[in-house]
Amino acid sequence: MKLYGYFRSSAAYRVRIALNWKGLEATREYVHLAKGEQRDPAYLKLNPQGLVPALVGDEGEVVLQSMAILEYLEERHPEPPLLPADAAGRARVRALGQAIACDIHPLNNLRVLKYLTGELGLGEAERGRWYRHWVHEGFAALERMLADDSRTGRYCHGDAVTLADLCLVPQVFNARRFETDLTAYPMLTRIDEALNSLPAFAAAAPGRQADAA
Amino acid sequence: MKLYGYFRSSAAYRVRIALNWKGLEATREYVHLAKGEQRDPAYLKLNPQGLVPALVGDEGEVVLQSMAILEYLEERHPEPPLLPADAAGRARVRALGQAIACDIHPLNNLRVLKYLTGELGLGEAERGRWYRHWVHEGFAALERMLADDSRTGRYCHGDAVTLADLCLVPQVFNARRFETDLTAYPMLTRIDEALNSLPAFAAAAPGRQADAA
Repeated sequence: MKLYGYFRSSAAYRVRIALNWKGLEATREYVHLAKGEQRDPAYLKLNPQGLVPALVGDEGEVVLQSMAILEYLEERHPEPPLLPADAAGRARVRALGQAIACDIHPLNNLRVLKYLTGELGLGEAERGRWYRHWVHEGFAALERMLADDSRTGRYCHGDAVTLADLCLVPQVFNARRFETDLTAYPMLTRIDEALNSLPAFAAAAPGRQADAA
Repeated sequence: MKLYGYFRSSAAYRVRIALNWKGLEATREYVHLAKGEQRDPAYLKLNPQGLVPALVGDEGEVVLQSMAILEYLEERHPEPPLLPADAAGRARVRALGQAIACDIHPLNNLRVLKYLTGELGLGEAERGRWYRHWVHEGFAALERMLADDSRTGRYCHGDAVTLADLCLVPQVFNARRFETDLTAYPMLTRIDEALNSLPAFAAAAPGRQADAA
């Protein structure tokens, strides 16, 4: 397999954790988003969205979108699992992950922040407020979804790592990078800390990637 | 089952199509987003995100996030399927759906548009430009993902309806509501038209819901 990623991309970070967790090898290709390499014609041919990550499977199949890649890896390499066995549990895990992947991250990724300061002419302070606003909206809801549900355990769903955890850690990392005050989210930060003690998560951190600045 | 929705919500629209397609009954509860009913304490207890849709299953399980709801319905009621049988095909369908659900819709939903005109003080014209910018970014990529892939058929993936189609129709509807010029996307509009001729899709349209203005 081959993974196209960028060290700071939250979405690529999710996939790096999944590969590590499942013990899968994937050659790494680096697409430097800040330098605009995602708009190279060769990359756009692979991924017309010009986003990372993109995974190329062993039979040459191209898989786009981080959440689709996670489901693909789970289907092709089910052990160790990243989804629980019961449908209601699987739905909860997916919903926790998508509360991040659909409702926080897309509002705060590089292309959107660039539109704010470029097209809309916002300053750094307004850009920061925008960023933190959506993180706080999302994290406040997530904190309640985790704190008010007895299925939450050492991690987001019980004591086994799930897709939800793979979304949480990159988003918490990103929130810290943008100096977001996380004191209102003791459940999120406790789970994040527990996850980061696992080698599969630690090795996927942006600072440990070959393309890190 | 019980579905909490709002006639204009693209995310709820996806779930309405899925229920129709699979012939499933669900009592409807209406959460009027423009009136702020999603912030009622009783609804926030059900869904701390204060978003629609939310599905309550027959055993009382609460399922949040439209894409998680679609996967849940597929797992609990696999016939007729909304995902193909092969892992690479399933990955493609999920990626097409998420290119909409993660990269277009979250940037253009009501709470974001309200932030633009409220907190950021943008006018109607700038808000419209923002809306159409992200639709064009997403649709241009989707058009290529569909046009350049031989797996595209009558619908997004072959000649059977899939989750990708359930995401496409609400997004095209929404784009038209915001007067987006879709002439550059002949593949998307052809597939959208084919899908809208199906009763399961037509009956899910916003204008046909009991809470439509």
